Amino acid sequence: MALIVQKYGGTSVGSIEKIKKVAERVIEYCKKGNRLVVVLSAMAGQTDSLIRLSKEIIDTPDPRELDVLMATGEQVSVSLFAIAVKSMGYDCRSLLGFQASIHTDQIYGKARIRKVDTNRIIRELDENRIIAVAGFQGIDESSNITTLGRGGSDTTAVALAAVLKADLCEIFTDVEGVFSADPNICTHAKKLDRISYEEMLELASLGAKVLDIRSLEFAKKFNVPIHVRSSFTKSEGTMVVEENKEMEKVMVSGVVFDKNEARITIVKAPDRPGIAFKIFDPVFKAGVVVDMIVQNTSAEGLTDLTFTVTKTDFQETMKLLKQVVQEIGAEKVLGDQDIAKVSIVGLGMKNHAGVASKMFETLSKENINISMISTSEIKISCVIEEKYTELAVRTLHESFGLGDEKEKN
Amino acid sequence: MALIVQKYGGTSVGSIEKIKKVAERVIEYCKKGNRLVVVLSAMAGQTDSLIRLSKEIIDTPDPRELDVLMATGEQVSVSLFAIAVKSMGYDCRSLLGFQASIHTDQIYGKARIRKVDTNRIIRELDENRIIAVAGFQGIDESSNITTLGRGGSDTTAVALAAVLKADLCEIFTDVEGVFSADPNICTHAKKLDRISYEEMLELASLGAKVLDIRSLEFAKKFNVPIHVRSSFTKSEGTMVVEENKEMEKVMVSGVVFDKNEARITIVKAPDRPGIAFKIFDPVFKAGVVVDMIVQNTSAEGLTDLTFTVTKTDFQETMKLLKQVVQEIGAEKVLGDQDIAKVSIVGLGMKNHAGVASKMFETLSKENINISMISTSEIKISCVIEEKYTELAVRTLHESFGLGDEKEKN
Repeated sequence: MALIVQKYGGTSVGSIEKIKKVAERVIEYCKKGNRLVVVLSAMAGQTDSLIRLSKEIIDTPDPRELDVLMATGEQVSVSLFAIAVKSMGYDCRSLLGFQASIHTDQIYGKARIRKVDTNRIIRELDENRIIAVAGFQGIDESSNITTLGRGGSDTTAVALAAVLKADLCEIFTDVEGVFSADPNICTHAKKLDRISYEEMLELASLGAKVLDIRSLEFAKKFNVPIHVRSSFTKSEGTMVVEENKEMEKVMVSGVVFDKNEARITIVKAPDRPGIAFKIFDPVFKAGVVVDMIVQNTSAEGLTDLTFTVTKTDFQETMKLLKQVVQEIGAEKVLGDQDIAKVSIVGLGMKNHAGVASKMFETLSKENINISMISTSEIKISCVIEEKYTELAVRTLHESFGLGDEKEKN
Repeated sequence: MALIVQKYGGTSVGSIEKIKKVAERVIEYCKKGNRLVVVLSAMAGQTDSLIRLSKEIIDTPDPRELDVLMATGEQVSVSLFAIAVKSMGYDCRSLLGFQASIHTDQIYGKARIRKVDTNRIIRELDENRIIAVAGFQGIDESSNITTLGRGGSDTTAVALAAVLKADLCEIFTDVEGVFSADPNICTHAKKLDRISYEEMLELASLGAKVLDIRSLEFAKKFNVPIHVRSSFTKSEGTMVVEENKEMEKVMVSGVVFDKNEARITIVKAPDRPGIAFKIFDPVFKAGVVVDMIVQNTSAEGLTDLTFTVTKTDFQETMKLLKQVVQEIGAEKVLGDQDIAKVSIVGLGMKNHAGVASKMFETLSKENINISMISTSEIKISCVIEEKYTELAVRTLHESFGLGDEKEKN
C-alpha cells in the first residue's frame, strides 16, 4: 500500500467538470489500494481575479491581508474537490494551511516552509480518508496566514511528500512532462523519461516553467522522487530523481530560453575595491533580483560591468543606476531590453570537455552574436539578441542531437 | 475611550466602493478615540454563488466541506476591508474564526458558539489596531471550520461584544432600525427608539428580519446593548436594551407578519395518551421545525390537531403524515399554504388586559377570519388567510395607535 502525494495545478481544477475528473482520477488510485494526499492550486484565473479586486482599492495592498485574500482561492478548490469525492462515495477531508500545520516564516507573499506537523494528516489518513490539502498556504508562528508565492503548491506537495515519507510525489500539470526543448519551438523536442534534481533545478531557474525551483530544492534535500505528468492524459511523464551514473552519460539534456530579462551595462566604472558593492547595494535594497553578472578585465583603471534583471525591474533599476553612475564617477549606464538568454543543461558536462565550444560554434555558424556568457557545472547560458531566440534553440537542439529520432523520420 | 463592536451586513460591503465607505466610517469612530472590533458578512451575493457552485457537483454537498467553502466569503470581505483601512493610513488586521478563537460545537451549517478566547483580539487592540473579524464562522474542538448559519454574523458580533465587555454593539444594516410595522406596508410606520430584548426576540422570531434570534439570546443573556442602524445614513437607529419600567407603559410596540408558513391539520385523531408523540416524532426526526401547535378539545374521543411549518417543509411533512394518519387511525390530513401569521408584540401586554380582545375585534371589523391563535406573555399571533395580510397589518397598526403622528399630518 503506497502513500502518494499528488498535486494538481490551476488548469487541472479550472472548472467544476475538471474538478470532478480529478476526483475520479484520485479515486482510481485509491481503488488500487494507495493512500492519497492531494494538493490543489486555486482554480485557474481565481488568483488573478482576487489580485485585481484588491488593486481596485490600492496598487500595493497590505501584504498580510493580501495573503488572507489569496488563500481563499485554494480553500475554494479543496472544498469543492472534497465535495466531489464524497459525492462519489469515498471519504475525503480538506485541510487548510493551519489545519495541515504547515508552518512558515513570516514573509508574506513568498513565505518559506519551516516545518510541517503531520499528526493531523496521519490521523485522517488512518481513518481511510483521501486528504485534500490547500496548496500555496501556511501559517506563521502567530497563526497569521502566509502564502508561498507563485508555484507554491508544488512546494506544498513536495514538502508533504518529504515529511510523510511518501513513496512518490506526482505533479499533474498541463504539459506531458519535461522536454528537451519547448515543443512549441522545436517540433522534434523529446519528452525526457528521467532527469536529475540538479538538471531540473537549472532548467527551472533558466525559464522552464514545469516545476517551481523551491519545490526542487526540497525534493533534492529529502530525496523525494517526483513524477511530472499531464492531468489530461494517462501517459507517463518525466521522473525527477537523484542523479546516477547512467545519467552522466548524457552530455546535454535540454535547451531552454528566457525572454524575461533585460541587460544593463555600467560603462567605464573606476576599477577599485568596493565599486561592485556601491553599484549593487541600492539595487538589492530595492528588492531587484539580479541574475547574470559579468565584469570585464580592467583597462586603464576602468572597467565595464554588465548584468541582467527581469524586464519588470528594468525601468526602476535604470533610474537607480543613473544616480549611482554619477556618484562613482562612471561614464554612463546602458540598457537593452531586446535580449534573450539561451541555455543548455546536462549532467554530462561535468565530465565532457568541449560542450561550451560546441555551443559557441553552433551559434556562430548562424551568425548569432553572444553578448554575455555564464556557466555552472552543468549549464552554459548565453545572452543573445531576442529576435534570434527560436533559431538558437532549434539549432542547439539539433546540434546536440536532442531530438526524438522517431519523430524525425 | 469606548470599545465598540460593529457589524456590517452583506449589502453594506457589497462592492469595493461600499467597503471603502465602511472603512471611512470606521476610521471616523477611531478618530473620536474609540477602539473598534468590526465584524463583516460576505459581500452580498457571494454566499449564494458559492452554494450554487457546490450544487453543480451535488444537490446535498457534504456539510463539513460546504462550511469550508462558505467561510471563504467572509475571508474575502475582511481582507479587502483591512486592505482598505490600511490604504487610508490606519492600522488594521483581519482575524478569521480560528484566529479570533471562536469555538463552536460541531454542527456544520448551524454551529453554536461555545466560547471565545479573547487573548489574540485584545493583544491586537492593544497594538492600536482596528480588528476586522470574519463573521459567521468558527472552529470546532478539532479545528474544523464551522459556520453559524444565516444571520450568523450578528451572533459573532454580539458574542464578541459580550466576551470583550464592549460598551456598545452596533449592527449596521440596510434599514434604518426597527419599525412598528413594515414601512413598505404601513406608510405611517414609526421607527422605534428603544425596544427590549424580549420584544425584539418575539419580533425576530415572528418574521422581522432585522436581527438574528440567536444573537438576541446572546445579547439578553450578557446584557449587551445593541444599536440597530443604517450603514447608508448617519441617523440614529433603534437601541435594543434590557426592559425597564418606562417600556412597560407601551402596550404594543409593533405589528409583524410572516407569509412563510403553511398550516397542517390532522382531522379526527383518536384522543389518547401518546398520540401527539406519534404524530410529531417522525416530523421532528425529519428535521422539520414546527411553529404553532393547537389542539382542540376532544369530542366523542376524537380531536383535531393543527400546526404550522415553513412552506419549504410543507410537502415533505404532508407526505410523512399521510402514513402517520393511517397508523394512528385518524380520518385525514389537511394542508393549506395560503395563510399568513400576523402578530402584535409589546411588553405592556403583561399588565394590560384587553389587548387580545382588541386585536380580535379589529380583525373582525374587517371581516378577517382567524383560524389559529397563539399567545405568549408579550405577543399574540393569529393565522389568517394570506390575501388579508397587508389589510390586517395596517388596521392593527392604526387601531393600536402605533403610527408616527408627525407623518400622519
